[in-house]
Amino acid sequence: MTAGGSLAGYLEARRAEVEAALAAFLPDPPQSPEMVDWAMRYSLLAGGKRLRPILCLASADAVGGEYRAAMPAACAVELIHTYSLIHDDLPAMDNDTMRRGRPTLHVVAGEGMAILAGDGLLTQAFLVLAREPATRDARIAARKLRVIETIARAAGVEGMVGGQAIDLASVTSTPNGRPPLELDAAGLQAMHAQKTGALIRAAAVSGAIMGGGSDGQIAAVDRAAGEFGLAFQIVDDILDVEGVTATLGKTAGKDAAAGKPTYPALYGVDTSRRLAEECLARAEAALRSADIGDDRLLAIGSWIVHRSN
Amino acid sequence: MTAGGSLAGYLEARRAEVEAALAAFLPDPPQSPEMVDWAMRYSLLAGGKRLRPILCLASADAVGGEYRAAMPAACAVELIHTYSLIHDDLPAMDNDTMRRGRPTLHVVAGEGMAILAGDGLLTQAFLVLAREPATRDARIAARKLRVIETIARAAGVEGMVGGQAIDLASVTSTPNGRPPLELDAAGLQAMHAQKTGALIRAAAVSGAIMGGGSDGQIAAVDRAAGEFGLAFQIVDDILDVEGVTATLGKTAGKDAAAGKPTYPALYGVDTSRRLAEECLARAEAALRSADIGDDRLLAIGSWIVHRSN
Repeated sequence: MTAGGSLAGYLEARRAEVEAALAAFLPDPPQSPEMVDWAMRYSLLAGGKRLRPILCLASADAVGGEYRAAMPAACAVELIHTYSLIHDDLPAMDNDTMRRGRPTLHVVAGEGMAILAGDGLLTQAFLVLAREPATRDARIAARKLRVIETIARAAGVEGMVGGQAIDLASVTSTPNGRPPLELDAAGLQAMHAQKTGALIRAAAVSGAIMGGGSDGQIAAVDRAAGEFGLAFQIVDDILDVEGVTATLGKTAGKDAAAGKPTYPALYGVDTSRRLAEECLARAEAALRSADIGDDRLLAIGSWIVHRSN
Repeated sequence: MTAGGSLAGYLEARRAEVEAALAAFLPDPPQSPEMVDWAMRYSLLAGGKRLRPILCLASADAVGGEYRAAMPAACAVELIHTYSLIHDDLPAMDNDTMRRGRPTLHVVAGEGMAILAGDGLLTQAFLVLAREPATRDARIAARKLRVIETIARAAGVEGMVGGQAIDLASVTSTPNGRPPLELDAAGLQAMHAQKTGALIRAAAVSGAIMGGGSDGQIAAVDRAAGEFGLAFQIVDDILDVEGVTATLGKTAGKDAAAGKPTYPALYGVDTSRRLAEECLARAEAALRSADIGDDRLLAIGSWIVHRSN
């Protein structure tokens, strides 16, 4: 966290509220066998940066709205992010055994239960989005539907799932014998924009929608979040090269070992760092163009670029 | 199909409309790599009985509504049903290699792609529900949110995913060494009510909501669909014992071989058939109590009980 005291305090306060809300948005009392309920909590309540929900809440603030109206959307995006990690970590995908400093879910609960816990988290996200905030106000209902559409589009085959499929196809040959998909630099960036960027953008856009932002404000927040997402991926790649497993909380060096193209591999570390800083400058310009001079959103961008895990 | 000519024609006409709508509700043009888009279509457009969407549309008709308003909900439920089949068939779950008369998706596309295709179908369901019908009418928006909540609750940990988790726990011991969960007759029925019944009920309820049904009509349709769901499971168990793989389009005798408790195993085939007929009688009574004298819904019930696959 490189932001000044009050900004750091703002982000930390939001993070604490998100933690409490996440626990509250899981089914309660558990109406399912202990095991799948336990599995969902194991992965969801394992800490994590909570970047997406905090970005969602900050976007509601940035357009002059009430951030609490965006809390269900913020939590829904984190539920979806967590499900995607569970499924990505499966042996049939990235085959990762460490995540957020703990053994991955399929290691402790079995593959079948991990698949189901992911399915349950994804479905729960839409239950929360439809149900909360609990009001029949027609204006809020219209915003909720727009947010559900935004998040579903970003999480699905046009976004995250499609990006993950490209990623999968780039490292494994298919059963019908096609060789792995080759990605050049542009293909790599497009894959990350789908796999990681789309949901980060949806988090911010959903916050701006629930905060009652104008179409111009929502579009500016979307552009800024797109830059944040790109910066996030570049820094992720740098940390994968430079990091150690203990700090990252997941296995370091996996991408390089798997022969995946990364920003440091394509451009070197120094140029990659400069590219990430340039994302922040473009994000700030996008926000200023819509008269959003919000230090809190930019503090999140700075955190993304200067983080160490 | 045992219903008379006009009822059979009604069901067949609806089925044909559902087939066309399902194809239209998949992402178009494909914005994802050919492979995951292909995988989603492989499983979704493989025929199937389309029981749930037809029940959804018939429920809209039954409450005096316009069935076309329920088409997005009908298709969303079928997208969710199809995703659940893909994930259930995975090696880590039921490990099935035949479905709807063809090799299961993971056999032809690999496990990773099958997991992603399922995730994509589930997410697409909510995209369709939020987006369609495309209107800003506040009354329709309220119905759409109610339908999203209904379907998400039925598909998630309180419903289908929770039921599947119980089913999984009943046939495998967990990594932490707990033995398989033992199910008695009541536990078996509760598991099926979650795993299969909840989504069948949600299909009917969603149709009644989109058709503008009163709360009393919606509750009656819900009760009738609950009976249909139970009958469906009883007949499924009977067909698993009596059927041959070629007719079923999936592997016969799996449940018995896996030692799963089934209705024929608990009660014998004749008593199981009688229990299914009793479901139909209770469904009819529930509908009549709300002055729904709709032969088309009851024809679906009769089809469920007298089907041969």
